[in-house]
Amino acid sequence: MPDASKAVLMIAASESDSNMLYATRFFVPDPFIFLKIAGKKIIIMSDLEVDRAKSQAKADEVLSFSRLSETLKSAGLKNPSSIDIINHLLKKHGIRSVEVPGNFPVEYADKIRERGFKLFPKPEPFFDERTVKSLKEITEITKTLRVTEEAIQEAVNVLQESKIRGDYLFHNGKKLTAESIKKIINVELMKRDCVAAHTIVAPGIQGCDPHNEGSGPLLANQSIIMDVFPHSMTTHYYADITRTVVRGRASDKLKRMFDAVREGQAIGFRMIRAGADGSEVHRAIQQYFDGLGFKTGEVNGRMQGFFHGTGHGLGLDVHEPPRLGAKKDILKAGQVVTNEPGLYYPDAGGIRLEDLLVVEKNGSTNLTRFPKYLEI
Amino acid sequence: MPDASKAVLMIAASESDSNMLYATRFFVPDPFIFLKIAGKKIIIMSDLEVDRAKSQAKADEVLSFSRLSETLKSAGLKNPSSIDIINHLLKKHGIRSVEVPGNFPVEYADKIRERGFKLFPKPEPFFDERTVKSLKEITEITKTLRVTEEAIQEAVNVLQESKIRGDYLFHNGKKLTAESIKKIINVELMKRDCVAAHTIVAPGIQGCDPHNEGSGPLLANQSIIMDVFPHSMTTHYYADITRTVVRGRASDKLKRMFDAVREGQAIGFRMIRAGADGSEVHRAIQQYFDGLGFKTGEVNGRMQGFFHGTGHGLGLDVHEPPRLGAKKDILKAGQVVTNEPGLYYPDAGGIRLEDLLVVEKNGSTNLTRFPKYLEI
Repeated sequence: MPDASKAVLMIAASESDSNMLYATRFFVPDPFIFLKIAGKKIIIMSDLEVDRAKSQAKADEVLSFSRLSETLKSAGLKNPSSIDIINHLLKKHGIRSVEVPGNFPVEYADKIRERGFKLFPKPEPFFDERTVKSLKEITEITKTLRVTEEAIQEAVNVLQESKIRGDYLFHNGKKLTAESIKKIINVELMKRDCVAAHTIVAPGIQGCDPHNEGSGPLLANQSIIMDVFPHSMTTHYYADITRTVVRGRASDKLKRMFDAVREGQAIGFRMIRAGADGSEVHRAIQQYFDGLGFKTGEVNGRMQGFFHGTGHGLGLDVHEPPRLGAKKDILKAGQVVTNEPGLYYPDAGGIRLEDLLVVEKNGSTNLTRFPKYLEI
Repeated sequence: MPDASKAVLMIAASESDSNMLYATRFFVPDPFIFLKIAGKKIIIMSDLEVDRAKSQAKADEVLSFSRLSETLKSAGLKNPSSIDIINHLLKKHGIRSVEVPGNFPVEYADKIRERGFKLFPKPEPFFDERTVKSLKEITEITKTLRVTEEAIQEAVNVLQESKIRGDYLFHNGKKLTAESIKKIINVELMKRDCVAAHTIVAPGIQGCDPHNEGSGPLLANQSIIMDVFPHSMTTHYYADITRTVVRGRASDKLKRMFDAVREGQAIGFRMIRAGADGSEVHRAIQQYFDGLGFKTGEVNGRMQGFFHGTGHGLGLDVHEPPRLGAKKDILKAGQVVTNEPGLYYPDAGGIRLEDLLVVEKNGSTNLTRFPKYLEI
């Protein structure tokens, strides 16, 4: 059994665990067992899922949990558990040790180890090949991205059409809010079969917390960060894009921040390529901002400047390896990563621009088409 | 330290882990550390999240990951990891053993145990009190349910207005499909700030796989199962409802199945109460179907009859304890559970009806208002 040392075990729901989805391409809301033994993928499904699995799942063998359970019962076991079934299958194939994902549940790990098996957790990326995307995967990501750009365009149209009265923006007689713009984006996405779990439309100082979703009225002459990262309901591939606009006039500081972020992002475009170290890209942008006088650090108990990473991998998860941040991470051709520097100062507002790139041998291709402008 | 033995540790992203969301009520897309020590909740946040956490999270202490990291660096550690920080905080509080959720990642568990700590995984429900809902939680679930009923009403309206031409249904000149009805439901939900990750609109034989989402044209005189289970984007509380309709005329067998499922559900309504065993409710419905001649089992390699559970708890997860299925599970007052028997025969179609109940001392309250009818 030459492959025995590389047996793989997962117990997860593919609707929430991207490694399980990657391995099976089959959406299941409840956890099930996956084994890879001697190169063969085996999944063990409940009565509820077994027939659908046979027609839809990418697996070499679909076994019935209840049928395996009956087998163990007739061998004398009273109430066979998932662990009993795993024990039975591993022994049957002469497997003594298995590799599991880093996020494998410790409660199952303990019980499997108690049966005498060796269990080796492997950190992300569990499937090394997952970080490098096939052309088909890049096509799926691009499809989600195009839909996302259409949804952002709808939001920009409404902002552009809005009337400025005093500090507020009005559209069809109604005051525009972060919530109303988020709803436009999310509904337009859903019309196109994409789901945004959270969409950020963060005005002014709210945008200085980069993960603040945003709430309340949108004001004129104020930065509005729109960060949209939905996935396709049919393929589960994500996209991720951020634009920052001002309805009305931006302050001089905001304009300088916008130019700096655009130039910082351009540093990323120049440096990102196969073999580049993500942390060097990140540091180069940090240093560029620093040189312009846009300092990063805590002021009055609050972080300001550029205090998040420059980018992250994206695919079946919105955040996956590699990272372009503080830690060394060598980029590979075919990875899809974001390039998203930002600057945040409570006295001016927040600016973030985010595009999606494919890493290539001699550079990168920007998948994002949406234009960049500040004042609308 | 009387509470030391009950220290709790979690490492998870609250956007995908409901226990973390339950404990902190704070949405974060990336994993962070949660500790409960001597009754106090401590969370350790990245620079990106620390300020938002201070204003939004339900925690007694919000610590900065990078500041703790600096402390450890000045004590001589080179690149402090999450594990180093957990090690530091547990030692500082004199903690030697911690309780973790069953789904705690084994890669972290191994590293924490290597440092000499005892780690006890606790299966679901990790927070016992989570299965019993407060009035506020029941209100949130009900809000999601009302929105879901509105979305299903929109779908039923379109089906009712459709014209039958040959076998197909037409609305505004277009052939109705499972996809088009799903889109109506999902967009209506999104307009009301609820997200459906998957919605089932399964016609005819497709509905005989209870988790088949459904695809292709909807036919007249055929069962159409609509199972809708979105969550609120603001609170993350789910709802879950299923209705089955026929546009046109149902066959006699489908009508008998519908009546049987409605009567089976009525058995659930009568039996569900605090102290009842979910598996007895399930068995009573199974036996009722069996007595009517609606047998359950594999026929020609395919499951048919009633081959899923009768119900499940619901809250921040769509499926959570308790279960009304094959295994004993004693219901408690305040739990919110589904009551969803179904019958599936490839020669007739599928019927499922699902309501949402609050378990009470002397019975239950049905939260669902949507009427039940077959032919439309």
